[in-house]
Amino acid sequence: MEAIWLEDHKLELKTDLPVPDAPGEALVRVLRAGICNTDLELVKGYYPYTGVLGHEFVGMVERGPEEITGKRVVGEINATCGGCRFCRSAAPTHCDDRTVLGIVGRHGAFARFLSLPAKNLHPVPDGISTDAAVFAEPLAAALEIQEQVAVGRGAKVLQVGDGKLGQLVGQTLLATGCDLSVVGRHPAKLARLERHGARTIDAGDVDAKSFDIAVEVTGNEEGFALAQRALRPRGTLVMKSTYAGRLSLDAASIVVDELTVVGSRCGPMGKAVEALGAGLEVEDLIEARYPLARGLDAFEHAGRRGALKVLLDVT
Amino acid sequence: MEAIWLEDHKLELKTDLPVPDAPGEALVRVLRAGICNTDLELVKGYYPYTGVLGHEFVGMVERGPEEITGKRVVGEINATCGGCRFCRSAAPTHCDDRTVLGIVGRHGAFARFLSLPAKNLHPVPDGISTDAAVFAEPLAAALEIQEQVAVGRGAKVLQVGDGKLGQLVGQTLLATGCDLSVVGRHPAKLARLERHGARTIDAGDVDAKSFDIAVEVTGNEEGFALAQRALRPRGTLVMKSTYAGRLSLDAASIVVDELTVVGSRCGPMGKAVEALGAGLEVEDLIEARYPLARGLDAFEHAGRRGALKVLLDVT
Repeated sequence: MEAIWLEDHKLELKTDLPVPDAPGEALVRVLRAGICNTDLELVKGYYPYTGVLGHEFVGMVERGPEEITGKRVVGEINATCGGCRFCRSAAPTHCDDRTVLGIVGRHGAFARFLSLPAKNLHPVPDGISTDAAVFAEPLAAALEIQEQVAVGRGAKVLQVGDGKLGQLVGQTLLATGCDLSVVGRHPAKLARLERHGARTIDAGDVDAKSFDIAVEVTGNEEGFALAQRALRPRGTLVMKSTYAGRLSLDAASIVVDELTVVGSRCGPMGKAVEALGAGLEVEDLIEARYPLARGLDAFEHAGRRGALKVLLDVT
Repeated sequence: MEAIWLEDHKLELKTDLPVPDAPGEALVRVLRAGICNTDLELVKGYYPYTGVLGHEFVGMVERGPEEITGKRVVGEINATCGGCRFCRSAAPTHCDDRTVLGIVGRHGAFARFLSLPAKNLHPVPDGISTDAAVFAEPLAAALEIQEQVAVGRGAKVLQVGDGKLGQLVGQTLLATGCDLSVVGRHPAKLARLERHGARTIDAGDVDAKSFDIAVEVTGNEEGFALAQRALRPRGTLVMKSTYAGRLSLDAASIVVDELTVVGSRCGPMGKAVEALGAGLEVEDLIEARYPLARGLDAFEHAGRRGALKVLLDVT
């Protein structure tokens, strides 16, 4: 089958890969897949991975338990052992022995077919389009913030970053009724978040020590520093991004202001599907779509400065 | 009066300073004072401060409200406005307009007399010696950890650092019934914590991803990295130290493992006095005492590698 293969920082379109055949797992025919910043970071070497890339997808179950066979599904990307201390303590995304679709030890979604345990798959209700459903995975990651930090109605929240994930983060934060200000670099993206109810603000106009919560979605040091500076004492900084390499920060102010810093990764897929079903607007985030055979062009496009969501149309 | 004065990274014994006379504040005759790592960092330039150093003290109220006059007291070091958002929200140690004894805009305790608002002063019960009471301030800082993080009975806790503050941190953590392991560099100090019930462990023997909570009391990058590496996913790292300058850390693992990092500063002085009253052992931490007139020698001593508590005997 065709697939986008990563090896030694190089992407390649392979055409002769075998269809996955993992015993006990469901076989999913991929319909649509999305390119995420983590994919771009993996190509840069953020984490050593060799194999088929891709973890945002919608597919059709080709072989699996009867109740989902033939259905459209999205999937939890962490495939877990079910028996370790994290699986047993309701934190399966941190399973000691997990593989992660297209990221750690498991071929991903930029392919004709993928394989995942059936328990990872969530049927997509008919009211949600395939294009919208491909956002379930990043939307779940955005919703993870609220699993970790209580975002109160009226809380003063600063979001630093207005990219692909930032758009979903902003929309989900606004749903809490918080008072959201966003710093970003792209007028059109800021305008989109304004349309959803956010206030946009220049980095230079951010008042120091004035926000209850700051969500950092840039993955860079300047973004972190701005988020930190904006927080009131005892405020919370959420790191909601893929950070490549090390981060240098002002440690004294974390101690003196007793800040809390929280790392945030994969989130509740079921709630993401619910939010899509409730009409959360995501399809306008699609900037381009490419057939799988042009996957390398799709990556080039996704890597352009300011690009929104680039999809692979696999059907 | 005599006092230890800091200016331009230089310490000086002044002998001609006026006795403080702040309207509305209590005047305290200092009996005993302790040198803390923050004092040493201030001399190195951690924070620009000019004035009398010192914030750990026991004194006798010379002038103030009748109910405390003539009594031995310890004191909250943050003098607050009472009206700002933090004072009103039960977080007065973060008051926007605070001054901090011997640290920010307020002359400190290495002097014959100091001045603080009467509300900052806590009487020392007769059962607590003056030598023990001088530990109230750092002990409160150690107890702050438990104000911020739930340390459950049996929780696996790693403490990195066995210094002056680390000793109090270890003792207060052990009081929670947690399962405490300590990494340190000084056999005698580690032995002391073992006597109190801790397990000591070599840095090289710390299992990765195995602790629920890690408390970093070294203030250096290696200590932070070790604490971070030791934490299980969704674990909590408490920064309980004075950090000079910037800290470089592995940001990706904070996100991937969804760690929480919490800065921790001043704590509940009343609870510290209670703990001393209940017999918490601290006097064996006193390594040396110097009269105020030999304050510069005391600083030299406190700055020696591995030094425990050095006191100034002001009476």
